[in-house]
Amino acid sequence: MQEQLTILGISGSPRRANTDLLLAEALSAAGGSGIINTEMIKLREHPIEYCLGCFQCNEVNDTLSGCKIHRDAMDILTEKLIACHGLIMASPVYFGGVTGQMKTFMDRTEPLLRYAPEPRGCALRNKVAAGISVGGNRNGGQEATLQSMHHFFMIHDMVVIGTGPDPQPGCYLGAAAFSGEHPQLGSQVKNAVEKDTIGMRAARIIGRRVAEMVTHLNRNPSGTLGR
Amino acid sequence: MQEQLTILGISGSPRRANTDLLLAEALSAAGGSGIINTEMIKLREHPIEYCLGCFQCNEVNDTLSGCKIHRDAMDILTEKLIACHGLIMASPVYFGGVTGQMKTFMDRTEPLLRYAPEPRGCALRNKVAAGISVGGNRNGGQEATLQSMHHFFMIHDMVVIGTGPDPQPGCYLGAAAFSGEHPQLGSQVKNAVEKDTIGMRAARIIGRRVAEMVTHLNRNPSGTLGR
Amino acid sequence: MQEQLTILGISGSPRRANTDLLLAEALSAAGGSGIINTEMIKLREHPIEYCLGCFQCNEVNDTLSGCKIHRDAMDILTEKLIACHGLIMASPVYFGGVTGQMKTFMDRTEPLLRYAPEPRGCALRNKVAAGISVGGNRNGGQEATLQSMHHFFMIHDMVVIGTGPDPQPGCYLGAAAFSGEHPQLGSQVKNAVEKDTIGMRAARIIGRRVAEMVTHLNRNPSGTLGR
Amino acid sequence: MQEQLTILGISGSPRRANTDLLLAEALSAAGGSGIINTEMIKLREHPIEYCLGCFQCNEVNDTLSGCKIHRDAMDILTEKLIACHGLIMASPVYFGGVTGQMKTFMDRTEPLLRYAPEPRGCALRNKVAAGISVGGNRNGGQEATLQSMHHFFMIHDMVVIGTGPDPQPGCYLGAAAFSGEHPQLGSQVKNAVEKDTIGMRAARIIGRRVAEMVTHLNRNPSGTLGR
Repeated sequence: MQEQLTILGISGSPRRANTDLLLAEALSAAGGSGIINTEMIKLREHPIEYCLGCFQCNEVNDTLSGCKIHRDAMDILTEKLIACHGLIMASPVYFGGVTGQMKTFMDRTEPLLRYAPEPRGCALRNKVAAGISVGGNRNGGQEATLQSMHHFFMIHDMVVIGTGPDPQPGCYLGAAAFSGEHPQLGSQVKNAVEKDTIGMRAARIIGRRVAEMVTHLNRNPSGTLGR
Repeated sequence: MQEQLTILGISGSPRRANTDLLLAEALSAAGGSGIINTEMIKLREHPIEYCLGCFQCNEVNDTLSGCKIHRDAMDILTEKLIACHGLIMASPVYFGGVTGQMKTFMDRTEPLLRYAPEPRGCALRNKVAAGISVGGNRNGGQEATLQSMHHFFMIHDMVVIGTGPDPQPGCYLGAAAFSGEHPQLGSQVKNAVEKDTIGMRAARIIGRRVAEMVTHLNRNPSGTLGR
Repeated sequence: MQEQLTILGISGSPRRANTDLLLAEALSAAGGSGIINTEMIKLREHPIEYCLGCFQCNEVNDTLSGCKIHRDAMDILTEKLIACHGLIMASPVYFGGVTGQMKTFMDRTEPLLRYAPEPRGCALRNKVAAGISVGGNRNGGQEATLQSMHHFFMIHDMVVIGTGPDPQPGCYLGAAAFSGEHPQLGSQVKNAVEKDTIGMRAARIIGRRVAEMVTHLNRNPSGTLGR
Repeated sequence: MQEQLTILGISGSPRRANTDLLLAEALSAAGGSGIINTEMIKLREHPIEYCLGCFQCNEVNDTLSGCKIHRDAMDILTEKLIACHGLIMASPVYFGGVTGQMKTFMDRTEPLLRYAPEPRGCALRNKVAAGISVGGNRNGGQEATLQSMHHFFMIHDMVVIGTGPDPQPGCYLGAAAFSGEHPQLGSQVKNAVEKDTIGMRAARIIGRRVAEMVTHLNRNPSGTLGR
């Protein structure tokens, strides 16, 4: 029987609105087939502390997350990261990049890097990854935000995926949405991004593309790419 | 009497359309006051060869552009670069960056870098610079294209300017326009960008902001910042 | 009598080591003349909470920082940001970008943006800004980290400065240092960056260049550039 | 019998030196197994004209490259791009990006994009891609150059690969080399990069990693990922 494959979505927004909507759209599109499970994590519901750069996670230790300093939501999130087959990160654009919460989450994945012992070390290697960003200005940092996610993915040696062959993907780097297109709604209005047909469609494209690549990379009978 | 100050605009488009329109809009906004001259150069009318990386421009020589290899339009363009007080570069987005023509133009400014003898060396230092990009997808590389222009500006030690205090500049890095917003027009339709109110307004903002900074940096009675 | 001009340095490192050293070197070089004051802030000594994206700072309110949600170190830091003439930000490279602490600090400057009322609104406009980054791999995100700082500076409409006319600045975008050049020391060894002659020299260059531009922009008798 | 798989290397340097050496090192490391062929193309030996942005390549036509305007080396290069399974692009850093030649090459791959008819349309989709850059300053644009290659790869919907699990890859985005580490040699000295152990090793890492992923993606008996 075919193993279930999991795509994990991480929302880095402090607010319950546009970013969540886009990520839900992507995960919904990803989960169409029977073999893909999806799960959505909202970082605002999982408080995490800043990484202190102590590098103690590079040593063997018996913590859940590999972090000896903080006992917080990363204990659970690390487990989910290790278990997933695909990862979609979604963030509003804050000052041309991901939110502080999302950046802190990235920093706290240090225990999964190349320096750490098995089974944590290189835990994200060869998993499929893609990004979603949404900004209040049309070209207000969406690309730069996706680039910073790609940098994170590359450091974890993941397989980075863009929007695929759609003729008008809006942004090739991932899904880029614009919450301020309708000034009468405003970027502060909850769910303004629902009116952004380009962004919402791109979210679906990204979801499908991650699902396609996750399936392809893992149904290989000669085994998945090793760590 | 106040010296005239010149803002030079460089269009990197191979086509006579959106990029030119945006640059003209920026230069028109820049030239409102009596002390600013503007000039627009279209690279497609000034054929230039690839830089060969020979570094002979780092030596004293009696060529017009500093390049000992090629006698081409860079002889004129180099003179204009040395004489200007502000520079606005405009390019369509080709594969997430400036066009090959624009990149080749950048490469050919090597004779104005820190390594070259006076008066060519550091010739662009402390001049004001800003960028304009226009793409056929909404977030199709406009930011990355502006970033690559900024990199060029920084290497020349210029003063890089964004869009200023406008509440909705569209893109903080410079003017980012979208030529494909109206699919019935299409990104291939000449002048499609005229319908892009965000992009056209941003072009005007950029023009005014460059003019403001050029004026401020040069009306200092204790002299302009030296090279 | 000439007004004193202040250059503020912000260190985003959670550790007491390389980043602080580089920033201290930059500020020391900046403060050589009699008219420049420098001050160094270490974010790890000033705990701040994540921005919640509520946008209430866009309204008039009687808080110190403009943030109605959090009473924390941003009350003091905001005051320092408003008062300074130049800003140097320094961060270790964490996953190809600034640290979570630094990103959170950036996010929390929302009350100084274009949307806020006077005197907070556009408070950083036309101040001089530059960046310092230090990574444990040689090309391990130093450029990307500086780019993300530039994005922040541009959004605040600051005047972004690179390394100036030095023939071998190491990185034109700012000071880029490498803490892992001497593997026997390792990137985790405190003060490893002291051995990085390229990075330490670049920090001094950046300090001098910011001081030069701060002085130039502010000694203009016809007044500084307005907000 | 196992089909031979081809990794194509493209050097964008106008000079016969560092970039070629790095690319040769990568291809040599890639070709270790019996099933991988490698081929190296030096753009300076294949003169190509600027793309004119006419979009005629989006229509069916009987040219070799899909370009109706220029009969030049792209006729051959396009065929090689269509046939390869992996692509490694290598460029010196010129003004913070790829060379004008390399950018022009990128632009001229328009006939292989999503807009073109079969079999040209989406011809690079799901091929494996990675980059190499070499600069005369240590952090002199190597990352930005790799980013611009990634943008190109993403637009073609390729699978972008970084440096893998090596503990000190030097740059996670690809191979980043430094030709000026030994000032007595200088960045202008031919083959200076041979002394750059970090860069040369990264080139080998990239070669092996591309070979690994090309092999994995193509030996799947249920077929390669379709276009």
